[in-house]
Amino acid sequence: MTRFKLTLEYDGGGFVGWQRQQNGPSVQQALEEAVFAFCGETVDAQAAGRTDAGVHALGQCVHLDLAREATPDRVRDAVNFHLKPAPVAVVAAEVVDESFHARFSAVRRRYLYRIVNRRAPLTLLRGRAWLVQPPLDAAAMHRAAQLLVGRHDFTSFRSVHCQALSPLKTLDALTVERDGEAIAIAATARSFLHHQVRNMVGTLKLVGEGKWREAELLAALDARDRAAAGPTAPPEGLYLVGVDY
Amino acid sequence: MTRFKLTLEYDGGGFVGWQRQQNGPSVQQALEEAVFAFCGETVDAQAAGRTDAGVHALGQCVHLDLAREATPDRVRDAVNFHLKPAPVAVVAAEVVDESFHARFSAVRRRYLYRIVNRRAPLTLLRGRAWLVQPPLDAAAMHRAAQLLVGRHDFTSFRSVHCQALSPLKTLDALTVERDGEAIAIAATARSFLHHQVRNMVGTLKLVGEGKWREAELLAALDARDRAAAGPTAPPEGLYLVGVDY
Repeated sequence: MTRFKLTLEYDGGGFVGWQRQQNGPSVQQALEEAVFAFCGETVDAQAAGRTDAGVHALGQCVHLDLAREATPDRVRDAVNFHLKPAPVAVVAAEVVDESFHARFSAVRRRYLYRIVNRRAPLTLLRGRAWLVQPPLDAAAMHRAAQLLVGRHDFTSFRSVHCQALSPLKTLDALTVERDGEAIAIAATARSFLHHQVRNMVGTLKLVGEGKWREAELLAALDARDRAAAGPTAPPEGLYLVGVDY
Repeated sequence: MTRFKLTLEYDGGGFVGWQRQQNGPSVQQALEEAVFAFCGETVDAQAAGRTDAGVHALGQCVHLDLAREATPDRVRDAVNFHLKPAPVAVVAAEVVDESFHARFSAVRRRYLYRIVNRRAPLTLLRGRAWLVQPPLDAAAMHRAAQLLVGRHDFTSFRSVHCQALSPLKTLDALTVERDGEAIAIAATARSFLHHQVRNMVGTLKLVGEGKWREAELLAALDARDRAAAGPTAPPEGLYLVGVDY
């Protein structure tokens, strides 16, 4: 058996998320079926981040084991051929050591959240960004975001369905940058709690609108209570940009 | 009557183009029907650029006359309300003098052509860029593009269906820039011939692949024969970025 690391890009819009589920098509199923169509092998693809329904990936990382001998380029092209017409693509493939695990070997995950801050509805970015119509103060959002950087108990920003053993996480970076009507929020950490990025974004939006000040954000963090923080930002603005090993 | 200038953004994918046609939905029809739904007036919307089927706009400019008194913000919001769910949005509206004409008053049109240069199929950019799999030398494309800048007879880059009186046009700028796998081609001129940008892009691709050198590009321009230049690049990579007055 040879272990392959695949880097995936996908439009999460039509999927129930990365993970196989009974209630609809998953990216995992699309990938595993394409691998089966290529080489007749039933694989168990493991991903670095189990993205939710509607969440996109620019650089999801996955590993799987194949008995079939093939070069990484051949695997990439063949799997892409069989993935069609699903909006999922293998952008890179490489052979890795059998000790490599896409999820457990990851040392850093990088997410991007895209907001479009304007009155007009979305057209080309529909399903690919969060439209926020009230004017947002991105500089205030960035300053407030720095309060979340570091090692904290992120219970207030954690989905009630989160299965992580501990709510303690170290957030390496959280930046908010405006470019015209586009606001990009970048989050980096070894790992995140379920919905952590979307809950941080939904809370920073309150700061951007002027409804919350930094004191309220700090109080929400300290409360260790999901009800104390802001709402969950919608999935379509979120992108798993890349995973570092 | 008050003349309004509207700036439109749209995903051209589902349209036969800007202009009303018998064979399918046009952006013009979507806009004019939304205006009618708003105020009951049958308007004739004039656009700066009659984008083809599949071509997108970030800043198409349109004018139309309304008897209904309304602020520009009210027009923008109401028309956007009635445009839904079409992927067309009014991003800005303003009152202009009755001498303003979206098409004839324009002094500069700016287009962007997006190429993704990689092996893997497109996912998030499907229908929004041209996937070119062979490696392209963007620097060579940029150098060659400079041969097209200036005042020339662009017959070789003109659709046989072009209705312009003269094939003589002045191309103000044509730049090719690579950012990773993305290649952006920006073209600026007072006006363009039908398919001119797509034909220039399709020809520059030959240069990028190393199939053509600058001498062949110059010979194609000098030939004043559509058959002498390269193929027409697909519409989905083209964006009307903005129009200057």
